[in-house]
Amino acid sequence: MAKRKSALSARDAKLIDAYWRAANYLSVGQIYLMDNPLLRETLRPEHIKPRLLGHWGTTPGLNFVYAHMNRLIRARDVNAIFICGPGHGGPAAVANVYLEGTYSEIYPNIGRDEAGLKRLFTQFSFPGGIPSHVAPETPGSINEGGELGYALLHAYGAVFDNPDLLACCVIGDGEAETGALAASWHSNKFLNPRRDGAVLPILHLNGWKIAGPTILARIAEADLFALLRGYGYDPRIVAGDDPMTMHHAMAEALDAAHDAIAAIQNQARANQNAIELPRWPMIVLRTPKGWTGPKAVDGLKVEGTFRAHQVPLSAVRDNDAHRAMLEAWMRGYKPEDLFDDTGALIPELAALAPEGARRMGANPHANGGLLRRDLDLPDFRDYAVDVAVPGATMAASTHVLGAWLRDVIARNRETFRLMGPDETDSNRLSAVFEATDRVSMAERTKDDVSVGQDGRVMEVLSEHLCQGWLEGYLLTGRHGLFSCYEAFIHIVDSMVNQHAKWLKTTQKIDWRKPIASLNYLLTSHVWRQDHNGFSHQDPGFIDHVANKKADVVRVYLPPDANTLLSVADHCLRSKNYVNVIVAGKQPEPQYLTMEQAIVHCTAGLGIWGFASNDHGVEPDVVMAAAGDVPTLETLAAIDLLHHHLPELKIRMVNVVDLMALQPPSAHPHGMDDHDFDSIFTTDRPVIFAYHGYPMLIHQLTYRRANHHQFHVHGYREEGTTTTPFDMTVLNELDRFHLAMAVIDRVPGLSSTAAHVKQELRGRLIAHRRCVTTTGDDLPEIRDWR
Amino acid sequence: MAKRKSALSARDAKLIDAYWRAANYLSVGQIYLMDNPLLRETLRPEHIKPRLLGHWGTTPGLNFVYAHMNRLIRARDVNAIFICGPGHGGPAAVANVYLEGTYSEIYPNIGRDEAGLKRLFTQFSFPGGIPSHVAPETPGSINEGGELGYALLHAYGAVFDNPDLLACCVIGDGEAETGALAASWHSNKFLNPRRDGAVLPILHLNGWKIAGPTILARIAEADLFALLRGYGYDPRIVAGDDPMTMHHAMAEALDAAHDAIAAIQNQARANQNAIELPRWPMIVLRTPKGWTGPKAVDGLKVEGTFRAHQVPLSAVRDNDAHRAMLEAWMRGYKPEDLFDDTGALIPELAALAPEGARRMGANPHANGGLLRRDLDLPDFRDYAVDVAVPGATMAASTHVLGAWLRDVIARNRETFRLMGPDETDSNRLSAVFEATDRVSMAERTKDDVSVGQDGRVMEVLSEHLCQGWLEGYLLTGRHGLFSCYEAFIHIVDSMVNQHAKWLKTTQKIDWRKPIASLNYLLTSHVWRQDHNGFSHQDPGFIDHVANKKADVVRVYLPPDANTLLSVADHCLRSKNYVNVIVAGKQPEPQYLTMEQAIVHCTAGLGIWGFASNDHGVEPDVVMAAAGDVPTLETLAAIDLLHHHLPELKIRMVNVVDLMALQPPSAHPHGMDDHDFDSIFTTDRPVIFAYHGYPMLIHQLTYRRANHHQFHVHGYREEGTTTTPFDMTVLNELDRFHLAMAVIDRVPGLSSTAAHVKQELRGRLIAHRRCVTTTGDDLPEIRDWR
Repeated sequence: MAKRKSALSARDAKLIDAYWRAANYLSVGQIYLMDNPLLRETLRPEHIKPRLLGHWGTTPGLNFVYAHMNRLIRARDVNAIFICGPGHGGPAAVANVYLEGTYSEIYPNIGRDEAGLKRLFTQFSFPGGIPSHVAPETPGSINEGGELGYALLHAYGAVFDNPDLLACCVIGDGEAETGALAASWHSNKFLNPRRDGAVLPILHLNGWKIAGPTILARIAEADLFALLRGYGYDPRIVAGDDPMTMHHAMAEALDAAHDAIAAIQNQARANQNAIELPRWPMIVLRTPKGWTGPKAVDGLKVEGTFRAHQVPLSAVRDNDAHRAMLEAWMRGYKPEDLFDDTGALIPELAALAPEGARRMGANPHANGGLLRRDLDLPDFRDYAVDVAVPGATMAASTHVLGAWLRDVIARNRETFRLMGPDETDSNRLSAVFEATDRVSMAERTKDDVSVGQDGRVMEVLSEHLCQGWLEGYLLTGRHGLFSCYEAFIHIVDSMVNQHAKWLKTTQKIDWRKPIASLNYLLTSHVWRQDHNGFSHQDPGFIDHVANKKADVVRVYLPPDANTLLSVADHCLRSKNYVNVIVAGKQPEPQYLTMEQAIVHCTAGLGIWGFASNDHGVEPDVVMAAAGDVPTLETLAAIDLLHHHLPELKIRMVNVVDLMALQPPSAHPHGMDDHDFDSIFTTDRPVIFAYHGYPMLIHQLTYRRANHHQFHVHGYREEGTTTTPFDMTVLNELDRFHLAMAVIDRVPGLSSTAAHVKQELRGRLIAHRRCVTTTGDDLPEIRDWR
Repeated sequence: MAKRKSALSARDAKLIDAYWRAANYLSVGQIYLMDNPLLRETLRPEHIKPRLLGHWGTTPGLNFVYAHMNRLIRARDVNAIFICGPGHGGPAAVANVYLEGTYSEIYPNIGRDEAGLKRLFTQFSFPGGIPSHVAPETPGSINEGGELGYALLHAYGAVFDNPDLLACCVIGDGEAETGALAASWHSNKFLNPRRDGAVLPILHLNGWKIAGPTILARIAEADLFALLRGYGYDPRIVAGDDPMTMHHAMAEALDAAHDAIAAIQNQARANQNAIELPRWPMIVLRTPKGWTGPKAVDGLKVEGTFRAHQVPLSAVRDNDAHRAMLEAWMRGYKPEDLFDDTGALIPELAALAPEGARRMGANPHANGGLLRRDLDLPDFRDYAVDVAVPGATMAASTHVLGAWLRDVIARNRETFRLMGPDETDSNRLSAVFEATDRVSMAERTKDDVSVGQDGRVMEVLSEHLCQGWLEGYLLTGRHGLFSCYEAFIHIVDSMVNQHAKWLKTTQKIDWRKPIASLNYLLTSHVWRQDHNGFSHQDPGFIDHVANKKADVVRVYLPPDANTLLSVADHCLRSKNYVNVIVAGKQPEPQYLTMEQAIVHCTAGLGIWGFASNDHGVEPDVVMAAAGDVPTLETLAAIDLLHHHLPELKIRMVNVVDLMALQPPSAHPHGMDDHDFDSIFTTDRPVIFAYHGYPMLIHQLTYRRANHHQFHVHGYREEGTTTTPFDMTVLNELDRFHLAMAVIDRVPGLSSTAAHVKQELRGRLIAHRRCVTTTGDDLPEIRDWR
């Protein structure tokens, strides 16, 4: 740690104020102007953008923090990134990254001269330009500022296993009302000062959101401090509206916070024993909304009110008085003292920015792909389940995966984490606890098992926290897996949306290097939540992600342990995707040897010869399955049909990569029509047993020749507390319904095999009677072979 | 308010302890037994359920709270409901509702005798029985205990505008980690003690979730208290494991909390001035997990550890020692002292329960349909936009709706609330502020506008809070509307799931009376978030709800203001649905007179004659639209085609009720095939312009005769910051692409009208050039007629 420097001299204060004015000037320019960026002439209507889409309210506060962070970084050689939580913080982030020089290095067409300024201003919130929020396009950002609530999670995710990194995280008082943010303060219980870096939260109170007041700005300061202390922080307030007073206060607050962080880290790193949960510093920054903007417009107060939220002067193109006010506002920052004749920031101010990778816009941690290294993965084939005969071996897929994950963790102790809402054991991944613990810095008791300060498993009963931490961890170049009950992953639908949008956008941004994929293991799935009932039964997350761009999303339904191992290995090697793996956690029959599994997963879908009897001839029917339970029921249905109708030629197809069902034009994993037709035929009925809502299969196969013959059985939203087999019966995904569907669909069979259907129906009735009286299935029904 | 009574006498303490033992006994019985409910003989394997699916850990604490609430209710004649937050609280809630007699009244086959006990035990977590969480089947519950995090929101929603009601809300320390719960403590800033009832939060700390420790149980008690005080509460702790000590402490704590509530309410109601934000009481209850259960099993500590979470003794059917331990555990509650020979609770204990509707299981507020009254709705026709010629009038649909909502609020000041994340103004519903304010009990400043303690608009930047409050409000018999940016409603995907599941389940429960529908107004939608960019552009919520059961979900896309009024009126009258309305907030052309709008909305979809030229003949093409922007672009495309290809016969169809596209077999709103075919034809190309992801239209029309001719244009996940028209261009939903699609699809046109396509393509190119240089569209493109 660098040694303590004294806070601001009077000269430094003046300089930092000038730097802040420059950032404010550039922010206002971005919101309003498309020409005359240095105000070399009086503003005319044609200098003003036709559509004013920016937001001013939060901007001066963000510029204030950024300028002061620059000072701290220079004074103490701090390795810091800037997380911009408040919505519409784009103008501030871009202004600062431009002032520090990073922007022009990355976007050479936006130079540090008058022409560059004109382009900088014009592109903002402009067609073909850049968004009004911090976004993938913004150098230095790992946070999209559109959907609020995830800033602090991204900050914590970034500093885990980055002991040298400081994440300065500004949180808006609007954002602070969200559920994700309210819960995320407790992230400090998962941060180990010995191994992890530090987060400096700066809660920015400016009193209003779009139109209404914010909660945290309107409670008594004693309550606010109690709340933040209750969350485990040591808050310090910086409040006011006089710039010079505020500069001194902010510099002192940042120095004090940095001292406190250094003290915590030094103490933790100087000894090797368990550490007390530290009380981390944070800052409460209270400034007027739209600080330094117009005091009043058309007789209504603006600065310090909700009216400063968006564009304080809205009619500047047509209203001469408004335009004159805009000009006065901008000239009030004294651009002539800040920029030289060419439009470049004067050297005295440029010297205030950090240099090279210490600039927050250029810090490689905020472009995590630069730092990403491949995981050191144990050979997944070494963990294979031995499958001599298909179906003869029983194993729990996730249990098998757990052993591999244990060794993934052991080999990658600084770059891989496993997230989950207290379900690691429940999801049968307990083997990981042979290599590591659940991490917790809070109190531990003698009755805790596998809980420790150095754990690599992050368990908290909040899917938001799991997701947000993992996003921050991935975005800074590391790897991870989020294991979750299938139904409750919907809790983060919107976060997944935003991450998928981020990935899609970065694919068009050359300087953003690919990051590790966001990997989900969804287990305790819809078919095996029989004990938890209807509330825990929902396979719709697959549909949710299937709406995203094909180049971002992949969905896998490995039917057994070896296919799960193969898929998981593939996902942990991949980049820039959202990978969804749905797999069972209960003991189930195993079908494929590891060699077969690899071939099957590589193809994405294929014929299972051992379950088919159409060798050398066209089948009468194709029975397809995607998912572990549908696969089991399909195989059992085939056995029933072989027994009753031995002449019937059945082809069994298993789908592990759902996107293979689409044509190559729709998804890179899509199977070409020739191969698809040769597997699914062009004219035979296909009885398709699917894990989720049936419509998705229709959607994916919509353009295939044989589509009109696809009959899909899946989840029909019939959930309850019952046996696993009975769940399939209620949704007509069971062996009996599948076999009856074959009889209904194969031409001729409905009459010739009516007696078979009758018998199958009888067994269904017997099953229902048994399960509702004894509480369990007929013993023979659970079996397969 | 009843006068203060002294706390527990020694005799009362003994009685309450016996009552608690009875509840614990019944809870264990539900988890384990299917016979021998009174232990009249030694437990044998066949008395034990084949599958043990219950959860013990949280149960004794819940029973403890319920028993003490009963005492408070009786002593002070309190009107209270019980919200059971902790997961798997089902055994406790059912045991208590049974003990108080409600259960047998509602479910007469579960009588208050030995046979009833046997059925009570057997049905729990049993096929065809009841879930292990509190659920719609549980009398007295308005909260499903499966997905955690919403208990406190439901409690607050229940007491808004119910000045006499107390919601006792138990929050588990697992649940407390969720985002929704963490944010929901601040609900007290929205509760007015003059007009609303009270919530008594009881934070139940037992230290563990499934396997890992909980945050709030493991931070210093000073921090926990600071946190809760920071949230605005006055916490009081009740901690320990000695039952008799705990009974006295809990009785005192409940009396003190009730006194404090009474004091706050009395003071607020005694004067008519503005009130200070009160500091409400709450209780922190710290008891061992699995309290009174087995201390240790197979050498491992159970009571007071995570091992008590589920079934402490797991092998009772096969393992004689375990079964003997279960019997000893159950006999430890002394059932012979609690139940008489017939199996009925002894009168001395039965007398401890409140009577009639004061029983928490029988309180009508927890079966809100009993209390629901129709809204007094102003005639929506009085708010109609005058439409002399289709397209000639411009209006902003939500702005028009705002005037009607203003009067809905004015006429229903105690039974209707409008929720939204600080977007009421932004969504152009500002007229409501002529009748009411945003509610806030926190500090208000002179610069606030439309903020007051009696507001009917609830704004908080948390979709979770909006949703949870509204659910609680509806479930207790009132009405509301949630207005939200379309993209961010995904934040509550999972909550909507759970509410839809609740509604589906209640449809099979006779005694649950229908409640008002959950109504969404989604505006600031995907096509008009051009200024906010990609992060704000997502129409996928429609797909999410479309997966739910047809008898629960409705989706409306009114294309103009009069259709929006008609749809909104319909939704506010409806019961037991989830209604999703997607409508624009920007000035747009108006098409239908109110009379036409009513006819159109009633049909769900129909031909718009004014835009069609196929009168008396079969059309060459059908151009269909669903949504305001698709409707505008379709009409403009038709004009282009009429101009260039006047001979082409075009039929224009507008879809306002998306579910009308399905067959009647799939949805009650489905149009029959005959009508559908007569509108969409069976063999002409249909160019369908749709608001959202195109696949949903294919999905809904999948079984229609002409389905293979449907060509759907919609959102292709191409979002950015640009003009509204350019958004349609990027997604090929604009007039030019639609007109070109007609030329491509109508047989023969691709050659004869090649020059027209060429010209249209030229105009697209001109548009793109214009928008990316000037920042705005070609002036003529915004127009229609």
